[in-house]
Amino acid sequence: MTEQASAVTADELNAFFEQGFAGVGARPLVTLAERGRLVLSLRADAGHLRPGGYISGPTQMAMADHAAYAALFTVTGIVPMALTSNLNINFLRPCIGEAVLAEAEVLKAGRVSAVMEVSLRAEGAEKPSAHAVVTYVMPKG
Amino acid sequence: MTEQASAVTADELNAFFEQGFAGVGARPLVTLAERGRLVLSLRADAGHLRPGGYISGPTQMAMADHAAYAALFTVTGIVPMALTSNLNINFLRPCIGEAVLAEAEVLKAGRVSAVMEVSLRAEGAEKPSAHAVVTYVMPKG
Amino acid sequence: MTEQASAVTADELNAFFEQGFAGVGARPLVTLAERGRLVLSLRADAGHLRPGGYISGPTQMAMADHAAYAALFTVTGIVPMALTSNLNINFLRPCIGEAVLAEAEVLKAGRVSAVMEVSLRAEGAEKPSAHAVVTYVMPKG
Amino acid sequence: MTEQASAVTADELNAFFEQGFAGVGARPLVTLAERGRLVLSLRADAGHLRPGGYISGPTQMAMADHAAYAALFTVTGIVPMALTSNLNINFLRPCIGEAVLAEAEVLKAGRVSAVMEVSLRAEGAEKPSAHAVVTYVMPKG
Repeated sequence: MTEQASAVTADELNAFFEQGFAGVGARPLVTLAERGRLVLSLRADAGHLRPGGYISGPTQMAMADHAAYAALFTVTGIVPMALTSNLNINFLRPCIGEAVLAEAEVLKAGRVSAVMEVSLRAEGAEKPSAHAVVTYVMPKG
Repeated sequence: MTEQASAVTADELNAFFEQGFAGVGARPLVTLAERGRLVLSLRADAGHLRPGGYISGPTQMAMADHAAYAALFTVTGIVPMALTSNLNINFLRPCIGEAVLAEAEVLKAGRVSAVMEVSLRAEGAEKPSAHAVVTYVMPKG
Repeated sequence: MTEQASAVTADELNAFFEQGFAGVGARPLVTLAERGRLVLSLRADAGHLRPGGYISGPTQMAMADHAAYAALFTVTGIVPMALTSNLNINFLRPCIGEAVLAEAEVLKAGRVSAVMEVSLRAEGAEKPSAHAVVTYVMPKG
Repeated sequence: MTEQASAVTADELNAFFEQGFAGVGARPLVTLAERGRLVLSLRADAGHLRPGGYISGPTQMAMADHAAYAALFTVTGIVPMALTSNLNINFLRPCIGEAVLAEAEVLKAGRVSAVMEVSLRAEGAEKPSAHAVVTYVMPKG
């Protein structure tokens, strides 16, 4: 799925996300954007961690949702009003590390909806900590 | 499922959550704890909102996960090492309001795992904004 | 949600399903159809059972899908080309009995998609054997 | 994950499934069994099809469940009493063909539970018709 270029570059995606959301702490950054595939990276801070250095479930769910959204744009271009309709996540192993990576792949990008698969992994870990499948619905028209 | 008393009171749950997590901003509060059923409430702040006053998907997912965890304790007592293994959420309608409520019901509390159903709704809204089903695994022994 | 009449009666639904599908063995029957709520019942035969008299996972998944489809019609009228886009099912307890019931409730029936919640239970059992949430997409136009 | 041999061969798996289940019509057959990865194939008959030659949703769900079960055994050996606890499936495209293939990959095989990812595709189709993630719980002891 990589022969055609991504509809947006990693820099364009990072610029879009920077102006749109004014959250606290570290922002996730797109480190790779190919057509249909994207990697998002987040440096974990205190708000993302549970005692013992575990990157929390909610942090991983938010990463999965964000990575799916950004991955969709590598196929469709930036569509801000695309909205999550379904997210299913399985937590497989503890996620322990200073950063967490989300690798998202577009399974389908249709006129009405799109489905992305996301594998989450602590930076440096060999196996994924979680696996999610996320459905987005496209805005009308 | 309400004839037997809850294994913990709302006050006990709120005290447990206060000492355990040092997050930023408003904490969710347990406003009702019956055996097998619990209501969690969060006053939304800037970090929880998207432009237009929408309470974000990740905020609702974190609420669903937290409410399921707390609801489980109304049956088992407080089991800190119970861990989320699966979360499935469907977003049904925009969630617009100053606070969001999560009503969780225990579908099953077994020796190995437990399954909770959570309905999320903006305070004052008639219909739910999202619906989740969350599976927790119990610690060994 | 029951004050307005169902868009179709149980008899109309059973007639529709009888002419549409030519499967083998017993067909599920709609035993209750209210607006937004429906009960589907299936008498289990050999093809539905595993050794020990357990009603199989695939039988329960098919029942959940069918009950969700029929429940949707109590709100929209019969829309044959509605298609399942997502199904999530949690198996809670063994399903042992001569018949299995699926009680479906419509969480949302929109122009583009609909979400139904389904509780499955062996006939005579006090607690559900499985719980599913099913999303259907509506045909265009 | 293919360097170590599969704990069971395709022939052993097919022999196990033949003696265990007395269903009607064609049985799915394991066509590839590597450690952590398996392909299951089903020749569709009338009971699996909807008008227009579409392989039905329930057929694909049953294939996903069966493929996940068999794939798990390539890592653990045959464990008949492993039971499905959760199945999540997204239907991506129509499934039209004379046979349907399910390719399953083991994401995690733990002492308590295992998670498999399954991609379903009509024979000859370039893109998947459905994608599922299935959790099995291991029997005690």
